[in-house]
Amino acid sequence: MQKSLSVYDSDGSTFAPLVVIELVSETKEEAIAWLLNRVRDKQQDGGAELLVEQLTPGAQGTEKDNPNVYVVGASWQRLLYGAEDVGLFKEFNDGSMRGFTYANKHNFKEFQGDGDGFLSMAECQYIIKHELDNLRAKDEAHVPGYPKMKLYPGKSVIRRMQSKGILVQVFPLHEKEELKRLSFSWFKKIKLSFQPLDDIRHYFGEGMALYFGFLEYFTLALIPMALIGIPYYLFDWEDYDKFTVFAGFNLVWCTVILELWKRLSASLAYGWGTLSRKKAFEEPRPGFHGVLGVNPVTGRAEPLYSNAKRQLRIYLVSVPFVLLCLYLSLYVMMIYFDMEGWALMIHDEEPTFWTGLLLFIPSIIYAVVIEIMNLIYRYAAEFLTGWENHRLESTFQNHLVLKVLVFNFFNCFASLFYIAFVMQDMVLLRQSLATLLITSQILNQIMEAFLPYWLQRRRNKKAHKRMIKTMEDKELPLSEQVKLEADMSTYLGTFDDYLELFLLFGYVSLFSCVYPLAAVLVVLNNVTEVYSDAFKMCKVFKRPFSEPAANIGVWQLAFEAMSVIAVVTNCALIGMSPKVKSYFPESETQLILWVVGFEHFLLASKFILTFVIPDVPKHIQIKLSRLEFESLEALKKRKMLEASGIPKTAK
Amino acid sequence: MQKSLSVYDSDGSTFAPLVVIELVSETKEEAIAWLLNRVRDKQQDGGAELLVEQLTPGAQGTEKDNPNVYVVGASWQRLLYGAEDVGLFKEFNDGSMRGFTYANKHNFKEFQGDGDGFLSMAECQYIIKHELDNLRAKDEAHVPGYPKMKLYPGKSVIRRMQSKGILVQVFPLHEKEELKRLSFSWFKKIKLSFQPLDDIRHYFGEGMALYFGFLEYFTLALIPMALIGIPYYLFDWEDYDKFTVFAGFNLVWCTVILELWKRLSASLAYGWGTLSRKKAFEEPRPGFHGVLGVNPVTGRAEPLYSNAKRQLRIYLVSVPFVLLCLYLSLYVMMIYFDMEGWALMIHDEEPTFWTGLLLFIPSIIYAVVIEIMNLIYRYAAEFLTGWENHRLESTFQNHLVLKVLVFNFFNCFASLFYIAFVMQDMVLLRQSLATLLITSQILNQIMEAFLPYWLQRRRNKKAHKRMIKTMEDKELPLSEQVKLEADMSTYLGTFDDYLELFLLFGYVSLFSCVYPLAAVLVVLNNVTEVYSDAFKMCKVFKRPFSEPAANIGVWQLAFEAMSVIAVVTNCALIGMSPKVKSYFPESETQLILWVVGFEHFLLASKFILTFVIPDVPKHIQIKLSRLEFESLEALKKRKMLEASGIPKTAK
Repeated sequence: MQKSLSVYDSDGSTFAPLVVIELVSETKEEAIAWLLNRVRDKQQDGGAELLVEQLTPGAQGTEKDNPNVYVVGASWQRLLYGAEDVGLFKEFNDGSMRGFTYANKHNFKEFQGDGDGFLSMAECQYIIKHELDNLRAKDEAHVPGYPKMKLYPGKSVIRRMQSKGILVQVFPLHEKEELKRLSFSWFKKIKLSFQPLDDIRHYFGEGMALYFGFLEYFTLALIPMALIGIPYYLFDWEDYDKFTVFAGFNLVWCTVILELWKRLSASLAYGWGTLSRKKAFEEPRPGFHGVLGVNPVTGRAEPLYSNAKRQLRIYLVSVPFVLLCLYLSLYVMMIYFDMEGWALMIHDEEPTFWTGLLLFIPSIIYAVVIEIMNLIYRYAAEFLTGWENHRLESTFQNHLVLKVLVFNFFNCFASLFYIAFVMQDMVLLRQSLATLLITSQILNQIMEAFLPYWLQRRRNKKAHKRMIKTMEDKELPLSEQVKLEADMSTYLGTFDDYLELFLLFGYVSLFSCVYPLAAVLVVLNNVTEVYSDAFKMCKVFKRPFSEPAANIGVWQLAFEAMSVIAVVTNCALIGMSPKVKSYFPESETQLILWVVGFEHFLLASKFILTFVIPDVPKHIQIKLSRLEFESLEALKKRKMLEASGIPKTAK
Repeated sequence: MQKSLSVYDSDGSTFAPLVVIELVSETKEEAIAWLLNRVRDKQQDGGAELLVEQLTPGAQGTEKDNPNVYVVGASWQRLLYGAEDVGLFKEFNDGSMRGFTYANKHNFKEFQGDGDGFLSMAECQYIIKHELDNLRAKDEAHVPGYPKMKLYPGKSVIRRMQSKGILVQVFPLHEKEELKRLSFSWFKKIKLSFQPLDDIRHYFGEGMALYFGFLEYFTLALIPMALIGIPYYLFDWEDYDKFTVFAGFNLVWCTVILELWKRLSASLAYGWGTLSRKKAFEEPRPGFHGVLGVNPVTGRAEPLYSNAKRQLRIYLVSVPFVLLCLYLSLYVMMIYFDMEGWALMIHDEEPTFWTGLLLFIPSIIYAVVIEIMNLIYRYAAEFLTGWENHRLESTFQNHLVLKVLVFNFFNCFASLFYIAFVMQDMVLLRQSLATLLITSQILNQIMEAFLPYWLQRRRNKKAHKRMIKTMEDKELPLSEQVKLEADMSTYLGTFDDYLELFLLFGYVSLFSCVYPLAAVLVVLNNVTEVYSDAFKMCKVFKRPFSEPAANIGVWQLAFEAMSVIAVVTNCALIGMSPKVKSYFPESETQLILWVVGFEHFLLASKFILTFVIPDVPKHIQIKLSRLEFESLEALKKRKMLEASGIPKTAK
């Protein structure tokens, strides 16, 4: 890692600043001094052993600037020990991926000299974040100067200061040079190529790289569907025969691509060293509160919150709230159908071009309303899940995802289900699907990238008018860069991005056989999505801390659930096609029984397929089991030596 | 462990004989000498470091007795090292279960003095088997005296001798005293009580104890069903209203009991120390053959067999064979229906008591034929799976189980499905179900326990006429006991026992709502099954090596698949009931759509339930994560010490 900017630490030696800590400007001196000492203290004394300095305001520093901004770095040796601490996997000399250990460092492939350049900046920042989070109170009863900010032995200092609001933010710095290179290879050159996943992972971490990998994979997987869809649309193949073929294709497609993605993601994660990495022990999330007690697992003092109370909150408040929202969504849907009927009535009275256009207005309004409802619900769900007071970030996320998914699925698709299976109006279904899809895509692109960018530009213009101009050509001083980045919006994780893909996947897999152009639209959307997401990561948001991830987690499950629902809807659509109906002229019962039988067969095959296709490709399985075998053998050898040694001395 | 019998080893000291090795009587001297030396050699020299002596023929020894019978034992120290080797979990001082290590031995709860009595005899025998299996060839090119019996470095000696037929058998010895105690508490006292699972595990190992635990659990779980079933039968509640209630109960029942069993089995396995025990690296199974190559995982020389060839054998031979068998089974079913029609015709012509009895004859014949077909197919499947040449015992077992399950399911239930859903004849369904169930239960009990016992008694009478008489009252000399046990049948594992339970579960869960007495019959059968299984394990078969197991493995999956099918059939039966039909007087289509919708809802709830109920009870989860946390902390502490030590020396 080469870093042009550097800071002098208290000994007078320089260090590369990696992470910024911002405290509120009125923080008491004694709290700051205490925090900095704890960060600098040696590990044996319970410190984090990091380097930290106050940011010296630059030439353009004004009175209004917050003076309590600190940059944190660490010596190379400290970072390498930290890499072992967090359990980083790196490529070994023999080409396998192994957990890095300091003692063994020279046997790792890319380790040269004193290890400068062995860790990427994103990894260093992740290590520093880990070490800061693990800085724990010793015998302090409270944060010095703040008697109300209680501490107890083992409480994470940073988390307590964050939850009490003296710590404004902790964020990693961008790396101008590398960011420029990454932006160029990623979205600035207009060239059809795969995304530079390894570079993305290098700069933003595995979680982000997996998102972009999945986005790309999903887009590529849609291409065959889009290609089949185009002639359907162009030649206006409206006969239901071909439509059945398309539904059948849909079925196979959505099962197969999800299975293959699992394998691909395992390959990627293996190459990045996250596949076999052990999960670290999970700490309570910052917002978690409760009565101080003893954690039965760690034996540490920790707030406890009774599970019964949480269940009560979930079942007595959250579940009824979600049901109420679903009811509201149904109500809005009914208003939409009223509007639809009203527009149709006007068009029937005066069938002109303008009234024909009017036919699309209800769908567009409905699409906009859906987006707004999704947005509001998103905040409500977050508040509610926070209030449920989950101990771990992962359970918090699971409950949030579940709440949001159920509502969004219902909100987006309920009207389509109603049109398809209750009204059985294929023309309206097609029109409604098209309007919903296109409107939501346009809204999303605006909300997601252009709005934040525009907001930020406006903010920047006010605050750093002069700087923006010079930013492009010459190197900014560190203090200015830090201030600039501190003002950027915070990226809130891949949740919303995955959610968007999930809904698009729904549009394509559930009903696209009635509107084959859906796949084409989604492909086009995804292509622009790649660019706008890349743009927002590089230009709009603060750099996020890299998040090690071995797979896309709960989203794999969500997509699989969607593909199961897709089997059901596609079978039903096939059963409703006149062509299929004509095979059973005399008995509708026979038809339904056949369709249901076929559907059960497909579902069964789907589950068997999921079971039969191994989730990890063979060659990676072999590599993993070789590592495991070697460590078993090493253990055995060590034991054997002990066994042959000890009896002799015992005699 | 107290063992009254003992053998003098070559040094003149005594040891308790644990395992018997029998070689064919004409084995060459040099091969025997070599094998014994390898078994006795120190571990550093690649030996097994066990004690082994030839069995001295007793007073009644005749010329015909095989002289090449050897008993194997080991010193206590060797066994304790072996326990660490195989990764045994034992109760620690603080009540948690931990991997046993020799260095830490005094911190384990039951470790007293020099460790005599710390390991059960079954554990010692398992350790010896493990050490014998891991006795590997060094640089011998072949077994001395047998140039054709090729060896290569790393080949398991015992497995090679077994597959080439010089090694007749390796089996553990029974322990008369403990067996007597176990038999008494298990099946000799006529008292309603739970089975002594801990004692069974102590004597036969975890795999067997889990089988008996499951059998008992299954029986208890059936009791509420049986209790509900009795009034149905007694009061002849034939109206379909109550029948629907029963089907609904069935649905919930079979989902819930399987989920609860998972938790119960996790609790049992935790207490026995097998839950978190790591699986040892799996060796190729004895029958596996191929061209000598290098295993990509272990790097050892090993026969390799191309996966493509195996797939060809599976898809071109095994699958068509299974399909052919299914067709044959269908053909037999059709003959049964012809017979049924013919019996009905006779009864219609002359409706007397005797022709009424004749009505049951076809079902009984069919039930017997089904059992015979299952038996023949079982051998064919075993042969075929062996011929497929799977590398691992576990994949061999999976393929065998799959083959057998598919055929048995089809063979036993196809006629019932046909009667229920094609003929829609509920009276015939009830009659057929009852006859099939009762006949197969009677046949099974005969085949399983009484036949082997009778055969063995006959064999014993011939060979050891005098001994049998004296066996009951006085202690047999070791040589006689070994000979007696060597002649007993070998227990082939729990496969057939689980298969029987699986089919019974099918009878109860799939159709029992039309014949509520089924649950009662199965409960009765299971009660006798416990006794006959216990009897056969203690009296009929050779003692099996204990098999560590954390759950019932592939059978859990099989039972869950059955319960999914049960949801489908019960929904269909409910839909066919006149009561439900009367709710939709005008439209059969509506009825079917409602039933299908209900079924989908149930299936979805079932999957969500499986997902939501944790497989391991909370208190065990906490114990497991505490262990994990402690080992992580210990690792961290060790690293911290190193980190603070190394830099100083580096400076």
